[in-house]
Order: sequence, then structure tokens, then C-alpha cells
Amino acid sequence: MALGKDYEDQDCNLARALELVGERWTLLVVRDAFYGVRRFKDFQVHLRIPRAVLTERLNRLVAAGILRKRPDRGRHEYVLTETGIDLWPAVFTLGQWAQRHLPDVPTYRIYQHAACGTELDHLGACPACERVVPAREIQMSPGPGARRDDPVSRALNKTHPLLHPLQVD
Amino acid sequence: MALGKDYEDQDCNLARALELVGERWTLLVVRDAFYGVRRFKDFQVHLRIPRAVLTERLNRLVAAGILRKRPDRGRHEYVLTETGIDLWPAVFTLGQWAQRHLPDVPTYRIYQHAACGTELDHLGACPACERVVPAREIQMSPGPGARRDDPVSRALNKTHPLLHPLQVD
Repeated sequence: MALGKDYEDQDCNLARALELVGERWTLLVVRDAFYGVRRFKDFQVHLRIPRAVLTERLNRLVAAGILRKRPDRGRHEYVLTETGIDLWPAVFTLGQWAQRHLPDVPTYRIYQHAACGTELDHLGACPACERVVPAREIQMSPGPGARRDDPVSRALNKTHPLLHPLQVD
Repeated sequence: MALGKDYEDQDCNLARALELVGERWTLLVVRDAFYGVRRFKDFQVHLRIPRAVLTERLNRLVAAGILRKRPDRGRHEYVLTETGIDLWPAVFTLGQWAQRHLPDVPTYRIYQHAACGTELDHLGACPACERVVPAREIQMSPGPGARRDDPVSRALNKTHPLLHPLQVD
């Protein structure tokens, strides 16, 4: 694996993480899994990447123990493992950084602590409960920047708890 | 910019972030800037990447307002801006995820709240002070996994506050 070898002499856990999730599209696959996307077809519709690239990314995430592939009504679904779910703080804080600092980034999604409805701060903490909220306790609503109209994006156009399977028409 | 275009139809601030910091090596350049690396030569020694790649990454980070290039004793140095410093939670939590979940990742660095000496938890909070600690208040020490012997790695082999200029021999 060329990517791994390239970072190999870095004494650095960040480099280890990037060997795995630093490949193009990989973190967006993980993001979709947090949104509740589970089927190959739905990842493909939402990410719009070639089938071979998606297959390779999913297989690598399964091999790394970030996703689990399991049978579901004659097909398969991909769900985040506990290891995968623990990527949430990195996924969330990187997205929030873009929202706050990059030009012309509208609010695509609003994240709330489901228990109290309070919007999370940029570090993923609930200001009302004064603690960092795990992914399982977060609900997501579309913000004004959400404009896409594929079936997955439409399914995301209502409030949805993270990690719950998304009902895609 | 091909990379940007590829993610362009993603309604997603994470995709916006990855257009910028998702390129190979870019987050490791940012990591080194947190460690206090400021000179081109020192980035090069520590990252071991071709000069042209490093030049391109540094220029892009400057253009994006993540690094600032400023004159220093007849040469230049690169320092993180406030926008760059705000990448810390993402950099830290991604590294901590690797430390906790990937096989054979030793402890390369130990991060403490400088004010009280308490080791940070995996979300970057100080358990004693019960709050997430900003990068400016963190000091870093080598862990048992730190084995490299270039001049930058040697300079990192003692306790060092993040963001302070690293004295490289």
C-alpha cells in the first residue's frame, strides 16, 4: 500500500490515521454512514463516485474495522462499528472548522443534542448540558445550504438522528 | 483545481474542509506548525517530502489563510494564523482516534494541560479542569513511540509548548 509506506517514517499517530482515512472520499463515506446511509447504492447516489472507487473504499473501511458489512434482506449493508463511531469528533470538528473559517460555506446541516434540542457548539458540546455529546445522542436537520435533490439528500431533508438507518425512497 | 471540483456537488462542510486539508501531507504540515516548526528546511527535514511538494502545500496553506509567511532574519518563517490554530481539535481528535483504535500505534506524544500538568483525554479536555484546552495551553512531551533522530525530532524530545518556535540545531 503506497499510501501507508509514504507516511511510514513519521513518528505520528495522525499519520497513522491519515494512511487509513486520508484517502480521497474515505471520510465522506464515513460521514454518510453517520447520516444513516447503509446500502452500496445509496452511498453511490450520494457520493457520485465510480463504483470501483466506492467498492475499494468500503472494503478498506471494513478491513480496518471502521465499518461492518452484514447481510440485510438478501443484500448487504454497511454500518459503523464502535471504532468507526469514535471518528465522530474528528469528522465533526473538521466540518465545523470549514463552516466557521472558509469563505462561502453555508450552513448545510444543523446538529442538536437530541435530548434537549440545543444546537451543539463547534467542539461538539451541548451548551445547555455542558458536555461533549456522543454521536448517538445527536440529531441533524438541514440548514439553508442543503440544496441537492437526489434520493439520499431528500431523505436527509428532515430531522434525523445520527446513525439511525436512513429511509431512502 | 481538480480536487475542489471533485467534491463540489457535495452539500457538505466536511467536503469543503477536505478540498483544502485533505491533500496528502497537508495536515502533517499543519501538525508540524503546531509543534513549532516554522522554517522551510525544518519542515523538509521532518516530513521528508520533495521540495516541490512542500512548496506547493505551504503556498496553498498561506493562500487559504491557515499559515502566514513572514520575513525572519533574512529568510521566511511560516506560522499558523488564528484560522490555522482552530484546526487543532480536528488534528488532535484524529490522532487520538488512531492511538486508541489502530493496531500497533505506540504513544508518540503525550499532551498535557500546561497550567496543571494533567494529561488530556482523547477529546482534548483536561480532566482536572473539566474543559477542552486550546492549543496555546498545551505542552507536548515525547512518548515511548518517538524514535526518530533527525534534528527536528531531537528538538521535540523534550517538553515543549505547542505553537512556540522550536529550537532546531
